Amino acid sequence: MANQPIDLREKLSRFSEHWSPKVIARLNDYEIKLAKLKGEFVWHTHEDTDELFLVLEGELTIQLRDGDVVLGPGQLFVVPRGVEHCPIADGEVHTVLIEPAGVVNTGTFGGDLTAPYDDSLA
Amino acid sequence: MANQPIDLREKLSRFSEHWSPKVIARLNDYEIKLAKLKGEFVWHTHEDTDELFLVLEGELTIQLRDGDVVLGPGQLFVVPRGVEHCPIADGEVHTVLIEPAGVVNTGTFGGDLTAPYDDSLA
Repeated sequence: MANQPIDLREKLSRFSEHWSPKVIARLNDYEIKLAKLKGEFVWHTHEDTDELFLVLEGELTIQLRDGDVVLGPGQLFVVPRGVEHCPIADGEVHTVLIEPAGVVNTGTFGGDLTAPYDDSLA
Repeated sequence: MANQPIDLREKLSRFSEHWSPKVIARLNDYEIKLAKLKGEFVWHTHEDTDELFLVLEGELTIQLRDGDVVLGPGQLFVVPRGVEHCPIADGEVHTVLIEPAGVVNTGTFGGDLTAPYDDSLA
């Protein structure tokens, strides 16, 4: 084990693409990911798991069918399992995502925005 | 469900005691906690789970038997299950902790620093 801290800013500096979460750490069978978001994603659902968003930079709106949640830096929200949601960001947003290993970003929707699994920064 | 963001600074403003993690959110069967740390904790182990520390403010040293990890704001470290560790903070540190529900702060050590379960801020 390398006893090194994981620096969020340093990890963020190593990629630029949007909607492509990068695994940076593991916690039991969960993954800690970083993502850069810009524009509107797709409405989708994770049937089997909650999903945590923690915003580091920018302003993220998580659209839900019963109202939007707006997150700024230092704010988090847990989308409950089975709840349809669609993130949207006017400007670029940097976010931490936490969810069980293997969760696909587009959930049950699939489609072109489905990101490949990427743990090259872990 | 109240579609409200969880603001880390606001939650931190609502307690002052050290070494007493507060649950602020749940993610499946995991808990997101905030803690304020100052001074030296006790050497302890969580036999059944990894434990994530994300520092928000201050400088935290996680002493491990094979070397220290020093974390500043925006840096995280996952202490692997079964690995003995002892956090120490010269100044006050604000940290996010993530681990499965029910993990006791002092692990297998117990003792006076064992904090009661507190989800009053969740």
